[in-house]
Amino acid sequence: MFDALRIVLVSPRNPLNIGAAARAMSNFGFTHLRLVKPYDLAFKEARSAVRSRYILEQAQVFESLSEAIADCTLIAGTTAVGHRELHAPLHRLEAAGQMITQHLASGSAALLFGSEKFGLSNEDMSHCNWLLRIPTRDEHGSMNLGQAVSICLYELRRSDAAAEKRFDAPQQASSGEYEQITALLLDVLGRSGYINERTSKSTELKIRRLVRRLGLPGSDVETWLGILRQVLWKVKG
Amino acid sequence: MFDALRIVLVSPRNPLNIGAAARAMSNFGFTHLRLVKPYDLAFKEARSAVRSRYILEQAQVFESLSEAIADCTLIAGTTAVGHRELHAPLHRLEAAGQMITQHLASGSAALLFGSEKFGLSNEDMSHCNWLLRIPTRDEHGSMNLGQAVSICLYELRRSDAAAEKRFDAPQQASSGEYEQITALLLDVLGRSGYINERTSKSTELKIRRLVRRLGLPGSDVETWLGILRQVLWKVKG
Repeated sequence: MFDALRIVLVSPRNPLNIGAAARAMSNFGFTHLRLVKPYDLAFKEARSAVRSRYILEQAQVFESLSEAIADCTLIAGTTAVGHRELHAPLHRLEAAGQMITQHLASGSAALLFGSEKFGLSNEDMSHCNWLLRIPTRDEHGSMNLGQAVSICLYELRRSDAAAEKRFDAPQQASSGEYEQITALLLDVLGRSGYINERTSKSTELKIRRLVRRLGLPGSDVETWLGILRQVLWKVKG
Repeated sequence: MFDALRIVLVSPRNPLNIGAAARAMSNFGFTHLRLVKPYDLAFKEARSAVRSRYILEQAQVFESLSEAIADCTLIAGTTAVGHRELHAPLHRLEAAGQMITQHLASGSAALLFGSEKFGLSNEDMSHCNWLLRIPTRDEHGSMNLGQAVSICLYELRRSDAAAEKRFDAPQQASSGEYEQITALLLDVLGRSGYINERTSKSTELKIRRLVRRLGLPGSDVETWLGILRQVLWKVKG
């Protein structure tokens, strides 16, 4: 499905940014890079991870934006929205990502990024069905081109379901295991002079509660028992 | 709340990447950058947007990771997970972002990024409560450092609620407005020789359906009527 998405860089100035865009595309599994009037035709030499080189080699270069997007049925433009008045609907990336994904189920789409210095021009934007904005601060909205591309592609790849999936908390030690550790620790402390004969009962309770608060993973119990046995052997000696 | 998050770059090699990380931090409103043994202490000169310079100037440099994270109560490390065996729970960024946000409600946290070449070492990771992975392709997992930072910060700032908020579809033209346009267009086509006398009734129906399928925003009706009236004036002349 994502094979129907074209990433279109309009008048990019810096080959390093083209390379960075290609690398992000490779990271997230997008293939089709199109360039409109790049300032530097040496972009194919752009430094980029080896594994994304194929994207630069297959990149298509166009003389105009309209040619670059002629085969697409949805055109979405990115903007940091400064003070220019926009003449198209503006969506936040979170919503725009879903709209692009839905569109790609049955059609092709182009995602447009303007030049590092000026962004998309009003003329570029007049080709767009709608615009999208990455939710940056109003005081510093303009992003680095490579980072903007990578964030948009991440949004397309991210999954709400994944947000729910967390590692299960590790199985906690059982009460019996806590008690084994408590007993050994008390033995060590008794032989080390930590425990005062007169208050030993209250100290025992204090240590038991202290150990229980550790939140010890069950899989670590054997290691702790080994450590305590070794110390006990030493303090006995 | 996000003021309690420290972005920690461990042994970054390239000042440009430090600058890129600072710029992303400024874009998304994060302030505290910490560097562990940067290869190049000239990082404060790193090219970066003017509006993120304050982050580089305030960045703190540490000799060791443990010093850099000493005041934090949650340590999360980023990894592309190659073939190294991980000894800590690994979460996808979507889940990790929620966990960090929840933690920041009451505590401080450090988000660790390794060097461009090697990522976090096993020793670095042993300081972490858990690890997170940006959902890149298995075949090309390793991201550019500046892009990885920007994606993590975007995930912290993004909002599920924003995904639901879409621009309302524009109010469509009313039936009467469609009919006005249809009538004018038929007049133009009649005078232009497009309509054949014998089939004029069926053509009229065809044109009406054609116009209705346009999905015309109500706010554009006047413009279209003006265009058609002008053309009608010309074809009458």
